[in-house]
Amino acid sequence: MLNFNFYNPTHIVFGKDRLSEIITLIPEKSKVLITYGGGSIKKFGTLDKVLNALKGFKVFEFGGIEANPQLNTCLKAVDIIKENNIDFILAVGGGSVIDATKYISIAAKYKGNDYTSLIKNGFSPAPVTDAVAFGTILTLPATGSEMNAFSVISHESGKHGFFSPLIYPKFSFLDPTLTFTLPKTQVANGIVDTYIHVLEQYLTYPIDARFQDRTAEGILQTLIEIGIKTIENPEDYNYRANFMWCATMALNGLIGAGVPQDWSTHMIGHEITAKFNIDHAKTLAIVLPSLLRERKGKKEGKLLQYANRVWNITEGSNEEIIEAAIVKTEVFFNSLGIATKISDYPIKKEELKDIIHQLESHGMTALSETGDLTLDITERILENAY
Amino acid sequence: MLNFNFYNPTHIVFGKDRLSEIITLIPEKSKVLITYGGGSIKKFGTLDKVLNALKGFKVFEFGGIEANPQLNTCLKAVDIIKENNIDFILAVGGGSVIDATKYISIAAKYKGNDYTSLIKNGFSPAPVTDAVAFGTILTLPATGSEMNAFSVISHESGKHGFFSPLIYPKFSFLDPTLTFTLPKTQVANGIVDTYIHVLEQYLTYPIDARFQDRTAEGILQTLIEIGIKTIENPEDYNYRANFMWCATMALNGLIGAGVPQDWSTHMIGHEITAKFNIDHAKTLAIVLPSLLRERKGKKEGKLLQYANRVWNITEGSNEEIIEAAIVKTEVFFNSLGIATKISDYPIKKEELKDIIHQLESHGMTALSETGDLTLDITERILENAY
Repeated sequence: MLNFNFYNPTHIVFGKDRLSEIITLIPEKSKVLITYGGGSIKKFGTLDKVLNALKGFKVFEFGGIEANPQLNTCLKAVDIIKENNIDFILAVGGGSVIDATKYISIAAKYKGNDYTSLIKNGFSPAPVTDAVAFGTILTLPATGSEMNAFSVISHESGKHGFFSPLIYPKFSFLDPTLTFTLPKTQVANGIVDTYIHVLEQYLTYPIDARFQDRTAEGILQTLIEIGIKTIENPEDYNYRANFMWCATMALNGLIGAGVPQDWSTHMIGHEITAKFNIDHAKTLAIVLPSLLRERKGKKEGKLLQYANRVWNITEGSNEEIIEAAIVKTEVFFNSLGIATKISDYPIKKEELKDIIHQLESHGMTALSETGDLTLDITERILENAY
Repeated sequence: MLNFNFYNPTHIVFGKDRLSEIITLIPEKSKVLITYGGGSIKKFGTLDKVLNALKGFKVFEFGGIEANPQLNTCLKAVDIIKENNIDFILAVGGGSVIDATKYISIAAKYKGNDYTSLIKNGFSPAPVTDAVAFGTILTLPATGSEMNAFSVISHESGKHGFFSPLIYPKFSFLDPTLTFTLPKTQVANGIVDTYIHVLEQYLTYPIDARFQDRTAEGILQTLIEIGIKTIENPEDYNYRANFMWCATMALNGLIGAGVPQDWSTHMIGHEITAKFNIDHAKTLAIVLPSLLRERKGKKEGKLLQYANRVWNITEGSNEEIIEAAIVKTEVFFNSLGIATKISDYPIKKEELKDIIHQLESHGMTALSETGDLTLDITERILENAY
């Protein structure tokens, strides 16, 4: 096991009908800015419930945060915070709204003029010393942003990941009933995103971290077990509750503590989203299988463990076992309605080069847990994923 | 899944040779009281390492905290804190030292005269509003106290559990190499204590909490896999690291979130320790198998799941499968050198009544996840455990 730090102070409030407790978690007399995305939280009554729970607080609203939130959108919220001396932000939505809120929370305390200086290419610590406190009400399980200190913001041609211990949410409300109205495709995206969050922390090389491995395998087995049922039974509380908690646990530091991590699929996927505007989870699903086939030598030990413990595959040569596990993974994604080939999307084969160029321009020339996934290998991964 | 809150802000620093980082985690210019138990942290050089890491801080020492720490011992440390205006406590030891430190931290801020008013029979919230901040350096994995807000203190004839969000350690250093010098019996106790912490949160009734169940099963499987090897290879870093992290994860709120819990074995075991001075873990190992046999009807669903997923037992009637799983559990404890019968200890059969009387005098007349484990049933459990 590698040395590690584990620190996660976000207070989770899990379950149905608990919104009235929110007033115990926001400092008294705070001026609160509610951040959200499109109209769904209005349409389905969530915003009304939140406003009702916040009676007694002075409340402002900022809607219109897009999927893959833009830096320039965030800056409009920063203006509202500065103009109105907002003390607390309440993000109501999924990963995009929460990620945007994280950027807003640090940008609102930033004293300089160059807001792009807070983010860099790839995934970097944010150079900040203060942030506006915020909590979240999660409506779309997927990114884990409700219980971690990471965020991804889009600006110009890139997606920029950053982190800071200052951007842990103070609290997150996880109410499975708030997910009942989600479109099926978003639930499918969330399941695949969660699954691949786990794999990026699990499918590296063996390091004898048994709790972490078994917990990762437990999330994968649960997602396989409940995936399609969660999509097809939108008002089944237990499926939604199990999915929601797995999504949070998949990326809150727990299974990644003390193990090597490989975020190549995410880094490549981010460029595909930035260039072709394809949903984040869908880009992961087209990159991952091809990446695993390309890297099956380096990942052999963990791929065999994955095949054996998650898919119960034990017969055949190592090569056959690994290929069977990758096929099972593809079939699982497909069963949720998520394609696993680039050619399933309106991307021309000759445009694959553009993805490589973007990776290069963003400095992503040596990815993976071993730092040797170079651009020529990435190009082959993309060609084989077509 | 039941509604739940999950909040755990303890900062874990895991790995070898990290003590020099402690100065970044204790507020500057703090006056620090180091609390510890017997002489082992002096004998094996741990105290010197800690003192060396704390250069620049004004440091006080309070040693002599016993196993099953006594309230009166804790009050001597409270006097030192008040006399010297101590700002921060650093517990160096196992669960007893950390539990004592938790009591010391709240008692040092208590304004009244009746220090027993901070604890009650059984397991209760501590009626406190302030506590001296503290961190821990763990030397004995077992109780999980390094990453939770629980404590058990002994006073007169009883063991008194209490909890408060104020008694989360600010940080805990988990260095597996500090466990290399532990006596084998303490390691065995720690493994069994950890295992039963998991079972008390897992072997109740099914509630469809899949992440929690699989994470619990993962800890159990890991302990079975590494148990005897951890004891027999004291300087094997990986065994110790896996054991240490499992012990922390077993009782930090993670696997108990959103599920029913049954702490009957602990409550009965506490009385046996209080009366006969038998190690905590050893009392659990003699109560648990008999309790499971007595309660196999109420626990049938989870016992079958335990048999199937943890022990891979699938053949036979439900009754046979459950009995086989309980026998496997006993054999596992025995293999670590831990007995599973009361008659293995110097307790006379007629003294079993005394345990029942103690439970009664401490108000423990209806234990378990369903609140219907009455004293007559407990008496039968003890008789069958003899």
